[in-house]
Amino acid sequence: MIEHPGLMLALSIAERLAIFAYAISGFIEARRRRLDPVGTFLVAMATAFGGGTVRDVLLERRPFYWVEHQNYALAIFVLSFFAPVVLKWTSRVLSDRALLVADAIGLGLFSISGTSLAMSAQMPWFTSVIMGVATGVFGGILRDVLCNEVPLILRDSRPYATCAFAGCGLYLLLAQTPLDAVYNVLLSTTFILLARLLTYRFDVRLPH
Amino acid sequence: MIEHPGLMLALSIAERLAIFAYAISGFIEARRRRLDPVGTFLVAMATAFGGGTVRDVLLERRPFYWVEHQNYALAIFVLSFFAPVVLKWTSRVLSDRALLVADAIGLGLFSISGTSLAMSAQMPWFTSVIMGVATGVFGGILRDVLCNEVPLILRDSRPYATCAFAGCGLYLLLAQTPLDAVYNVLLSTTFILLARLLTYRFDVRLPH
Amino acid sequence: MIEHPGLMLALSIAERLAIFAYAISGFIEARRRRLDPVGTFLVAMATAFGGGTVRDVLLERRPFYWVEHQNYALAIFVLSFFAPVVLKWTSRVLSDRALLVADAIGLGLFSISGTSLAMSAQMPWFTSVIMGVATGVFGGILRDVLCNEVPLILRDSRPYATCAFAGCGLYLLLAQTPLDAVYNVLLSTTFILLARLLTYRFDVRLPH
Repeated sequence: MIEHPGLMLALSIAERLAIFAYAISGFIEARRRRLDPVGTFLVAMATAFGGGTVRDVLLERRPFYWVEHQNYALAIFVLSFFAPVVLKWTSRVLSDRALLVADAIGLGLFSISGTSLAMSAQMPWFTSVIMGVATGVFGGILRDVLCNEVPLILRDSRPYATCAFAGCGLYLLLAQTPLDAVYNVLLSTTFILLARLLTYRFDVRLPH
Repeated sequence: MIEHPGLMLALSIAERLAIFAYAISGFIEARRRRLDPVGTFLVAMATAFGGGTVRDVLLERRPFYWVEHQNYALAIFVLSFFAPVVLKWTSRVLSDRALLVADAIGLGLFSISGTSLAMSAQMPWFTSVIMGVATGVFGGILRDVLCNEVPLILRDSRPYATCAFAGCGLYLLLAQTPLDAVYNVLLSTTFILLARLLTYRFDVRLPH
Repeated sequence: MIEHPGLMLALSIAERLAIFAYAISGFIEARRRRLDPVGTFLVAMATAFGGGTVRDVLLERRPFYWVEHQNYALAIFVLSFFAPVVLKWTSRVLSDRALLVADAIGLGLFSISGTSLAMSAQMPWFTSVIMGVATGVFGGILRDVLCNEVPLILRDSRPYATCAFAGCGLYLLLAQTPLDAVYNVLLSTTFILLARLLTYRFDVRLPH
């Protein structure tokens, strides 16, 4: 679909960053619960690929992303055995802010990919928005359900799913214009990324 | 399948009532957990459409109900932002009894629809009963899992899934008679509705 | 696929044992939470058939095992109403060790069946391993999520999913050799069974 080679590369790097960030958030939660390595692996996999898998089940798409790119799953598997080291290394080399940015990139990429795939599958517009948001947030929900907590994104009043909602809506609007799909993906993903970072930075809260 | 226009209208009104009642029970739970609006929306959606979606994934039916009727999803979305107002209004205008009745209508309609669709898909009889019960109760289970509670319908000893079981069994029995399918749907749904209300009213308890 | 009649019988007996053991573990958990009979049934069903159902949804296989063998579901249904009696009887007649062995047989059979089906569906090798492990352990995860606990297999540091991992890996390795598929199933299942029992017996712990 997207044919600019430079952009392809950028998207592919962003995607790896995002999967890594989601997996790390699985590691952190698994660590807090003192899970063993295989438990850690399963939680990290659910966090990184849960959203996309639910989307693909709903849209009847195959193969699953983690089936097609099984090297990501393998990498997470290996890292799970060194999760304490990975987390220590991550927290030393990367600031919390870096993880926040990587996670926000993931939220943007996964949500927009979900909406875009739902539209290609001829879903009606609001369904496409919901599928985009679900793709972006379902991994985190699964992670918290597995670790027996009320999902963070449901109870945290800081906008998260809300940013994904707004961005997926923007994508749909722009899809009605003559704007190239590539730029639409870029713009909407960036919108979600910035919305997440700015609302976080300025501590915007939703009422609850 | 069903062609009486008056009955169609009645069923369609009952269906809206039921979806509304399920969504409201999602709002109530979300309020108790102090979820933000988007969290409230996701929980209400899971409650209202979770059972039907699981049934459709198991039976490989598409499109999903909430995809075909996305206006319901939109309405729930809008209401989520006013959930406190909606709940205050609901509790003032509608008694708890009204909500109980609407929820029991939902249990009846969703369960019988699940059994009837499973039978059309040539499922064996006990599987059809299970799929009916799952369609009726899975939304409530998802709601409670998302809100990190033992699902109410599993631990409450007041018959709920049990009423659905009995009604789906009745539907299967009547399907062996020459009775018109329309009247079978009506009778079995009413049976579940009454069973739920009467056991509730007379405080019938299951052993546990 | 497998044509030795004696072996078929042995596998079919092992399978019943395994389903029974998984269902019993559902009963035990349901009892602890004081669920009513229908709640008990749903939890036992989820424990016994959850893993295979998720595998079949992921691999797009139909009919589901519990649809094809609805007598198992019926048996679990009937037993659910006598769960306290069943548990008392089980604990008198069977030692904890017998249950542990039956559960380990289930872990072996379900995991190897999952890997073998995934391979037949042309899944890549690591995906096949993951699907095998998921088939073996997902039922227990569902049981604990429904009962609002951190899944035992994620937090227990005694190897469980790890044994399944190793056995599914062994199965894949042996599948590259000229060894007959029948013996491969037997060997790998036995490997998981023994790995589980021996690590349990000698109290081997994973780091966490």
